[in-house]
Amino acid sequence: MKRRGMLIVLSGPSGVGKGTVRKAIFDQGANEFEYSISMTTRKPREGEVDGEDYFFVSKEEFEDRIKNGGMLEYAQYVDNYYGTPLKYVNETLDSGKDVFLEIEVNGAKQVREKMPDGVFLFLTPPDLMELKQRIINRGTEDMATIDKRMKKAVEEIKTMRDYDYAVVNDDINVAVEEIKTIIRGEHLRVTRVYPEYQEMLGEM
Amino acid sequence: MKRRGMLIVLSGPSGVGKGTVRKAIFDQGANEFEYSISMTTRKPREGEVDGEDYFFVSKEEFEDRIKNGGMLEYAQYVDNYYGTPLKYVNETLDSGKDVFLEIEVNGAKQVREKMPDGVFLFLTPPDLMELKQRIINRGTEDMATIDKRMKKAVEEIKTMRDYDYAVVNDDINVAVEEIKTIIRGEHLRVTRVYPEYQEMLGEM
Repeated sequence: MKRRGMLIVLSGPSGVGKGTVRKAIFDQGANEFEYSISMTTRKPREGEVDGEDYFFVSKEEFEDRIKNGGMLEYAQYVDNYYGTPLKYVNETLDSGKDVFLEIEVNGAKQVREKMPDGVFLFLTPPDLMELKQRIINRGTEDMATIDKRMKKAVEEIKTMRDYDYAVVNDDINVAVEEIKTIIRGEHLRVTRVYPEYQEMLGEM
Repeated sequence: MKRRGMLIVLSGPSGVGKGTVRKAIFDQGANEFEYSISMTTRKPREGEVDGEDYFFVSKEEFEDRIKNGGMLEYAQYVDNYYGTPLKYVNETLDSGKDVFLEIEVNGAKQVREKMPDGVFLFLTPPDLMELKQRIINRGTEDMATIDKRMKKAVEEIKTMRDYDYAVVNDDINVAVEEIKTIIRGEHLRVTRVYPEYQEMLGEM
Protein backbone atom coordinates (compact mmCIF):
# COMPACT_ATOMS: atom_id res chain seq x y z
CA MET A 1 0.00 0.00 0.00
CA LYS A 2 1.45 3.33 -1.07
CA ARG A 3 1.37 6.09 1.53
CA ARG A 4 -0.81 9.00 0.46
CA GLY A 5 1.01 12.29 -0.06
CA MET A 6 0.79 15.19 2.34
CA LEU A 7 -1.16 18.35 1.59
CA ILE A 8 0.76 21.54 2.37
CA VAL A 9 -1.22 24.79 2.47
CA LEU A 10 0.52 28.18 2.50
CA SER A 11 -1.79 31.08 3.25
CA GLY A 12 -1.74 34.48 4.95
CA PRO A 13 -3.06 38.03 4.60
CA SER A 14 -3.35 39.54 1.15
CA GLY A 15 -0.14 41.39 0.30
CA VAL A 16 2.08 39.48 2.74
CA GLY A 17 4.09 38.00 -0.11
CA LYS A 18 2.68 34.46 -0.40
CA GLY A 19 3.22 34.36 -4.16
CA THR A 20 6.81 35.59 -3.92
CA VAL A 21 7.69 33.05 -1.24
CA ARG A 22 6.00 30.25 -3.16
CA LYS A 23 7.90 31.20 -6.33
CA ALA A 24 11.21 31.26 -4.42
CA ILE A 25 10.52 27.76 -3.08
CA PHE A 26 9.80 26.35 -6.52
CA ASP A 27 12.57 28.31 -8.26
CA GLN A 28 15.07 26.58 -5.96
CA GLY A 29 13.86 23.23 -7.31
CA ALA A 30 14.75 19.89 -5.68
CA ASN A 31 11.45 19.87 -3.83
CA GLU A 32 9.61 16.70 -3.09
CA PHE A 33 6.21 18.26 -3.54
CA GLU A 34 4.16 19.43 -6.50
CA TYR A 35 2.67 22.87 -6.86
CA SER A 36 -1.05 23.02 -7.45
CA ILE A 37 -1.75 25.97 -9.74
CA SER A 38 -4.75 28.07 -8.72
CA MET A 39 -7.53 29.11 -11.02
CA THR A 40 -8.79 32.68 -11.18
CA THR A 41 -11.15 34.92 -13.08
CA ARG A 42 -9.03 38.05 -12.55
CA LYS A 43 -7.01 39.49 -15.41
CA PRO A 44 -3.33 38.53 -15.58
CA ARG A 45 -0.92 41.14 -14.13
CA GLU A 46 2.05 42.08 -16.27
CA GLY A 47 4.41 39.14 -16.62
CA GLU A 48 1.95 36.52 -15.36
CA VAL A 49 1.64 33.42 -17.50
CA ASP A 50 -1.50 31.28 -17.93
CA GLY A 51 -0.97 27.73 -16.62
CA GLU A 52 2.06 28.86 -14.64
CA ASP A 53 1.04 31.64 -12.25
CA TYR A 54 -2.66 30.81 -12.51
CA PHE A 55 -5.14 29.19 -14.82
CA PHE A 56 -6.95 32.29 -16.06
CA VAL A 57 -10.57 31.45 -16.89
CA SER A 58 -13.87 33.25 -17.45
CA LYS A 59 -16.42 33.84 -14.70
CA GLU A 60 -18.80 31.43 -16.43
CA GLU A 61 -16.29 28.60 -16.55
CA PHE A 62 -15.37 29.09 -12.89
CA GLU A 63 -19.01 29.06 -11.76
CA ASP A 64 -19.64 25.89 -13.76
CA ARG A 65 -16.79 24.16 -11.90
CA ILE A 66 -18.19 25.25 -8.52
CA LYS A 67 -21.60 23.80 -9.43
CA ASN A 68 -20.04 20.49 -10.52
CA GLY A 69 -18.05 20.06 -7.27
CA GLY A 70 -14.82 20.50 -9.15
CA MET A 71 -13.20 23.00 -6.74
CA LEU A 72 -11.40 22.00 -3.52
CA GLU A 73 -11.79 25.58 -2.37
CA TYR A 74 -12.63 28.93 -3.84
CA ALA A 75 -13.10 32.50 -2.72
CA GLN A 76 -14.51 35.64 -4.21
CA TYR A 77 -12.21 38.58 -3.62
CA VAL A 78 -12.42 42.11 -5.09
CA ASP A 79 -15.02 40.86 -7.61
CA ASN A 80 -12.93 37.93 -8.78
CA TYR A 81 -12.91 34.20 -8.09
CA TYR A 82 -9.78 32.37 -6.95
CA GLY A 83 -9.74 28.63 -6.36
CA THR A 84 -8.09 25.22 -6.52
CA PRO A 85 -9.24 22.54 -8.97
CA LEU A 86 -9.86 19.35 -6.94
CA LYS A 87 -8.89 16.66 -9.45
CA TYR A 88 -5.17 17.43 -9.69
CA VAL A 89 -4.80 17.60 -5.90
CA ASN A 90 -6.43 14.22 -5.32
CA GLU A 91 -4.58 12.45 -8.11
CA THR A 92 -1.21 13.75 -6.93
CA LEU A 93 -1.84 12.83 -3.28
CA ASP A 94 -2.98 9.35 -4.34
CA SER A 95 0.27 8.86 -6.26
CA GLY A 96 2.15 9.38 -2.97
CA LYS A 97 3.45 12.87 -3.74
CA ASP A 98 2.93 15.93 -1.57
CA VAL A 99 0.91 18.83 -2.93
CA PHE A 100 1.67 22.47 -2.19
CA LEU A 101 -1.17 25.02 -2.27
CA GLU A 102 -0.69 28.78 -2.00
CA ILE A 103 -4.13 30.26 -1.36
CA GLU A 104 -6.13 33.00 0.36
CA VAL A 105 -7.30 32.59 3.97
CA ASN A 106 -10.93 31.96 3.03
CA GLY A 107 -9.83 29.14 0.78
CA ALA A 108 -7.51 27.69 3.42
CA LYS A 109 -10.45 27.49 5.81
CA GLN A 110 -12.44 25.44 3.30
CA VAL A 111 -9.49 23.10 2.72
CA ARG A 112 -9.07 22.66 6.48
CA GLU A 113 -12.65 21.43 6.68
CA LYS A 114 -12.27 19.00 3.78
CA MET A 115 -8.70 17.82 4.42
CA PRO A 116 -7.95 18.33 8.13
CA ASP A 117 -4.77 16.23 8.04
CA GLY A 118 -3.01 18.76 5.81
CA VAL A 119 -0.23 21.00 7.11
CA PHE A 120 -1.42 24.58 7.35
CA LEU A 121 1.18 27.37 7.25
CA PHE A 122 0.37 31.00 7.88
CA LEU A 123 2.69 33.61 6.37
CA THR A 124 2.76 36.78 8.48
CA PRO A 125 4.19 40.26 7.90
CA PRO A 126 7.02 41.36 10.29
CA ASP A 127 4.57 44.00 11.43
CA LEU A 128 1.37 45.47 10.08
CA MET A 129 2.91 48.81 9.04
CA GLU A 130 5.31 46.87 6.87
CA LEU A 131 2.33 45.14 5.28
CA LYS A 132 0.69 48.47 4.46
CA GLN A 133 3.90 49.71 2.85
CA ARG A 134 4.11 46.61 0.68
CA ILE A 135 0.61 47.06 -0.66
CA ILE A 136 1.34 50.74 -1.38
CA ASN A 137 4.62 49.86 -3.09
CA ARG A 138 2.82 47.43 -5.36
CA GLY A 139 1.04 50.55 -6.64
CA THR A 140 -2.00 48.76 -7.96
CA GLU A 141 -4.48 49.97 -5.28
CA ASP A 142 -5.87 53.37 -4.20
CA MET A 143 -5.91 54.52 -0.53
CA ALA A 144 -9.52 53.48 0.16
CA THR A 145 -8.70 49.98 -1.02
CA ILE A 146 -5.54 49.98 1.11
CA ASP A 147 -7.46 50.93 4.28
CA LYS A 148 -10.03 48.23 3.55
CA ARG A 149 -7.20 45.75 3.11
CA MET A 150 -5.53 46.76 6.39
CA LYS A 151 -8.69 46.11 8.40
CA LYS A 152 -9.05 42.84 6.60
CA ALA A 153 -5.40 42.01 7.37
CA VAL A 154 -5.89 42.45 11.12
CA GLU A 155 -8.83 40.08 10.99
CA GLU A 156 -6.85 37.67 8.86
CA ILE A 157 -3.89 37.65 11.26
CA LYS A 158 -6.28 36.56 14.00
CA THR A 159 -7.18 33.55 11.86
CA MET A 160 -3.58 32.38 12.43
CA ARG A 161 -4.99 30.41 15.34
CA ASP A 162 -6.60 28.01 12.89
CA TYR A 163 -3.19 27.13 11.40
CA ASP A 164 -0.44 24.76 12.47
CA TYR A 165 2.57 27.00 11.83
CA ALA A 166 3.35 30.71 11.49
CA VAL A 167 6.24 31.89 9.31
CA VAL A 168 7.32 35.54 9.32
CA ASN A 169 8.06 36.94 5.87
CA ASP A 170 10.85 39.32 6.83
CA ASP A 171 13.87 37.82 5.03
CA ILE A 172 12.53 35.71 2.16
CA ASN A 173 15.43 33.23 2.34
CA VAL A 174 14.72 32.62 6.01
CA ALA A 175 11.01 32.20 5.28
CA VAL A 176 11.70 29.65 2.52
CA GLU A 177 14.10 27.71 4.75
CA GLU A 178 11.57 27.68 7.59
CA ILE A 179 8.82 26.39 5.34
CA LYS A 180 11.05 23.57 4.11
CA THR A 181 12.03 22.76 7.70
CA ILE A 182 8.38 22.55 8.72
CA ILE A 183 7.60 20.20 5.82
CA ARG A 184 10.54 17.91 6.65
CA GLY A 185 9.52 17.83 10.29
CA GLU A 186 5.88 17.07 9.51
CA HIS A 187 6.95 13.95 7.61
CA LEU A 188 8.29 12.63 10.92
CA ARG A 189 5.08 13.11 12.86
CA VAL A 190 3.89 9.93 14.53
CA THR A 191 0.37 10.35 13.13
CA ARG A 192 1.89 10.13 9.62
CA VAL A 193 4.41 7.30 10.12
CA TYR A 194 2.71 5.00 12.63
CA PRO A 195 0.75 2.99 10.02
CA GLU A 196 4.08 1.66 8.66
CA TYR A 197 5.16 0.50 12.12
CA GLN A 198 1.85 -1.22 12.64
CA GLU A 199 2.64 -3.37 9.59
CA MET A 200 6.11 -4.19 10.91
CA LEU A 201 4.80 -5.17 14.35
CA GLY A 202 2.12 -7.32 12.70
CA GLU A 203 4.86 -9.42 11.12
CA MET A 204 6.53 -10.37 14.41
CA MET B 1 7.37 39.10 29.43
CA LYS B 2 9.96 36.54 28.46
CA ARG B 3 8.71 33.53 26.54
CA ARG B 4 9.16 30.29 28.46
CA GLY B 5 11.55 27.78 26.91
CA MET B 6 10.41 24.62 25.18
CA LEU B 7 10.84 21.20 26.72
CA ILE B 8 12.24 18.60 24.29
CA VAL B 9 12.00 14.96 25.29
CA LEU B 10 13.94 12.25 23.43
CA SER B 11 12.93 8.72 24.34
CA GLY B 12 12.61 5.27 22.79
CA PRO B 13 13.18 1.59 23.51
CA SER B 14 16.13 0.58 25.63
CA GLY B 15 19.12 -0.12 23.40
CA VAL B 16 17.91 1.98 20.46
CA GLY B 17 20.82 4.37 20.86
CA LYS B 18 19.23 7.36 22.62
CA GLY B 19 22.43 8.15 24.54
CA THR B 20 24.60 8.01 21.42
CA VAL B 21 22.26 10.27 19.45
CA ARG B 22 22.00 12.70 22.35
CA LYS B 23 25.80 12.83 22.68
CA ALA B 24 26.18 13.45 18.93
CA ILE B 25 23.73 16.36 19.14
CA PHE B 26 25.59 17.98 22.00
CA ASP B 27 29.07 17.22 20.65
CA GLN B 28 28.15 19.25 17.54
CA GLY B 29 27.56 22.25 19.79
CA ALA B 30 25.83 25.43 18.60
CA ASN B 31 22.53 24.22 20.03
CA GLU B 32 20.00 26.57 21.46
CA PHE B 33 18.91 24.16 24.15
CA GLU B 34 20.39 22.92 27.39
CA TYR B 35 20.85 19.29 28.29
CA SER B 36 19.27 18.16 31.51
CA ILE B 37 21.53 15.50 33.03
CA SER B 38 19.68 12.50 34.44
CA MET B 39 20.23 11.07 37.87
CA THR B 40 20.69 7.35 38.45
CA THR B 41 21.51 4.81 41.13
CA ARG B 42 23.22 2.42 38.72
CA LYS B 43 27.01 2.07 38.70
CA PRO B 44 28.89 4.09 36.08
CA ARG B 45 29.92 2.11 32.98
CA GLU B 46 33.52 2.42 31.85
CA GLY B 47 34.23 5.94 30.66
CA GLU B 48 31.08 7.48 32.14
CA VAL B 49 31.64 10.64 34.16
CA ASP B 50 29.58 11.81 37.16
CA GLY B 51 27.81 15.11 36.41
CA GLU B 52 28.32 14.63 32.69
CA ASP B 53 26.70 11.35 31.63
CA TYR B 54 24.60 11.09 34.78
CA PHE B 55 24.53 12.25 38.33
CA PHE B 56 25.38 8.99 40.08
CA VAL B 57 23.75 8.85 43.51
CA SER B 58 22.86 6.27 46.17
CA LYS B 59 19.48 4.57 46.35
CA GLU B 60 18.77 6.39 49.62
CA GLU B 61 19.46 9.81 48.16
CA PHE B 62 17.26 9.07 45.10
CA GLU B 63 14.34 7.88 47.23
CA ASP B 64 14.62 10.99 49.40
CA ARG B 65 14.26 13.15 46.30
CA ILE B 66 11.19 11.21 45.16
CA LYS B 67 9.55 11.74 48.56
CA ASN B 68 10.31 15.47 48.48
CA GLY B 69 8.77 15.98 45.01
CA GLY B 70 12.17 16.78 43.59
CA MET B 71 11.93 14.53 40.51
CA LEU B 72 10.15 15.54 37.26
CA GLU B 73 10.08 11.85 36.35
CA TYR B 74 11.75 8.66 37.42
CA ALA B 75 11.68 4.98 36.59
CA GLN B 76 12.97 1.83 38.17
CA TYR B 77 14.69 -0.36 35.60
CA VAL B 78 16.74 -3.53 36.20
CA ASP B 79 16.86 -2.71 39.94
CA ASN B 80 18.08 0.83 39.44
CA TYR B 81 16.44 4.24 39.52
CA TYR B 82 16.77 6.71 36.66
CA GLY B 83 15.23 10.16 36.80
CA THR B 84 15.27 13.88 36.08
CA PRO B 85 15.75 16.45 38.85
CA LEU B 86 12.88 18.98 38.55
CA LYS B 87 14.59 22.17 39.73
CA TYR B 88 17.08 22.55 36.88
CA VAL B 89 14.39 21.95 34.23
CA ASN B 90 12.04 24.59 35.62
CA GLU B 91 14.72 27.21 36.15
CA THR B 92 16.07 26.79 32.62
CA LEU B 93 12.61 26.93 31.01
CA ASP B 94 11.79 30.05 33.05
CA SER B 95 14.95 31.74 31.77
CA GLY B 96 13.58 31.29 28.22
CA LYS B 97 15.94 28.49 27.18
CA ASP B 98 14.86 25.13 25.81
CA VAL B 99 15.65 22.00 27.81
CA PHE B 100 16.56 18.66 26.24
CA LEU B 101 15.79 15.44 28.13
CA GLU B 102 16.93 11.99 27.06
CA ILE B 103 14.96 9.50 29.12
CA GLU B 104 13.29 6.07 29.22
CA VAL B 105 9.71 5.61 27.98
CA ASN B 106 8.23 5.30 31.47
CA GLY B 107 9.78 8.60 32.39
CA ALA B 108 8.61 10.26 29.18
CA LYS B 109 5.05 9.24 30.03
CA GLN B 110 5.28 10.97 33.41
CA VAL B 111 6.70 14.12 31.81
CA ARG B 112 3.88 14.11 29.24
CA GLU B 113 1.37 14.20 32.08
CA LYS B 114 3.13 17.02 33.92
CA MET B 115 4.29 19.09 30.93
CA PRO B 116 1.97 18.28 27.98
CA ASP B 117 3.20 21.21 25.87
CA GLY B 118 6.66 19.64 25.51
CA VAL B 119 7.85 18.14 22.22
CA PHE B 120 8.05 14.37 22.48
CA LEU B 121 10.38 12.51 20.12
CA PHE B 122 10.51 8.74 19.85
CA LEU B 123 13.74 7.18 18.58
CA THR B 124 13.06 3.89 16.79
CA PRO B 125 15.31 1.10 15.53
CA PRO B 126 15.34 0.53 11.73
CA ASP B 127 13.84 -2.86 12.55
CA LEU B 128 13.54 -4.97 15.66
CA MET B 129 16.17 -7.55 14.63
CA GLU B 130 18.64 -4.71 14.38
CA LEU B 131 17.70 -3.68 17.90
CA LYS B 132 18.39 -7.18 19.22
CA GLN B 133 21.81 -7.17 17.56
CA ARG B 134 22.68 -3.86 19.16
CA ILE B 135 21.89 -5.09 22.64
CA ILE B 136 23.94 -8.27 22.01
CA ASN B 137 26.84 -6.23 20.64
CA ARG B 138 26.87 -4.08 23.74
CA GLY B 139 27.80 -7.33 25.48
CA THR B 140 26.61 -6.35 28.92
CA GLU B 141 23.54 -8.64 29.05
CA ASP B 142 22.91 -12.44 28.99
CA MET B 143 20.37 -14.08 26.61
CA ALA B 144 17.51 -14.24 29.13
CA THR B 145 17.86 -10.51 29.72
CA ILE B 146 17.97 -9.92 25.95
CA ASP B 147 14.71 -11.84 25.37
CA LYS B 148 13.06 -9.92 28.18
CA ARG B 149 14.28 -6.70 26.61
CA MET B 150 12.96 -7.65 23.15
CA LYS B 151 9.43 -8.23 24.46
CA LYS B 152 9.69 -4.97 26.29
CA ALA B 153 10.90 -3.27 23.10
CA VAL B 154 7.84 -4.37 21.09
CA GLU B 155 5.59 -2.95 23.80
CA GLU B 156 7.67 0.20 23.90
CA ILE B 157 7.43 0.73 20.15
CA LYS B 158 3.67 0.68 20.47
CA THR B 159 3.94 3.58 22.90
CA MET B 160 5.17 5.62 19.94
CA ARG B 161 1.56 6.65 19.51
CA ASP B 162 1.85 8.82 22.62
CA TYR B 163 4.66 10.86 21.02
CA ASP B 164 4.66 13.75 18.56
CA TYR B 165 7.49 12.59 16.29
CA ALA B 166 9.28 9.36 15.35
CA VAL B 167 12.92 9.41 14.28
CA VAL B 168 14.58 6.27 12.90
CA ASN B 169 18.08 5.66 14.26
CA ASP B 170 19.60 4.09 11.15
CA ASP B 171 22.23 6.64 10.12
CA ILE B 172 23.10 8.66 13.22
CA ASN B 173 23.86 11.82 11.22
CA VAL B 174 20.43 11.66 9.61
CA ALA B 175 18.80 11.09 13.00
CA VAL B 176 20.61 14.09 14.52
CA GLU B 177 19.64 16.29 11.59
CA GLU B 178 16.00 15.18 11.80
CA ILE B 179 15.84 15.93 15.51
CA LYS B 180 17.23 19.42 14.93
CA THR B 181 14.75 19.95 12.08
CA ILE B 182 11.85 18.95 14.33
CA ILE B 183 12.98 21.36 17.05
CA ARG B 184 13.32 24.25 14.59
CA GLY B 185 9.88 23.50 13.17
CA GLU B 186 8.24 23.27 16.57
CA HIS B 187 9.40 26.81 17.37
CA LEU B 188 7.20 27.97 14.49
CA ARG B 189 4.02 26.31 15.74
CA VAL B 190 1.14 28.73 16.10
CA THR B 191 0.39 27.51 19.62
CA ARG B 192 3.89 28.66 20.62
CA VAL B 193 4.10 32.00 18.78
CA TYR B 194 0.54 33.31 18.89
CA PRO B 195 0.88 35.02 22.32
CA GLU B 196 3.41 37.45 20.77
CA TYR B 197 0.99 38.34 17.97
CA GLN B 198 -1.76 38.93 20.47
CA GLU B 199 0.42 41.63 22.05
CA MET B 200 1.08 43.23 18.65
CA LEU B 201 -2.60 43.28 17.71
CA GLY B 202 -3.45 44.73 21.13
CA GLU B 203 -1.30 47.76 20.28
CA MET B 204 -3.23 48.66 17.12
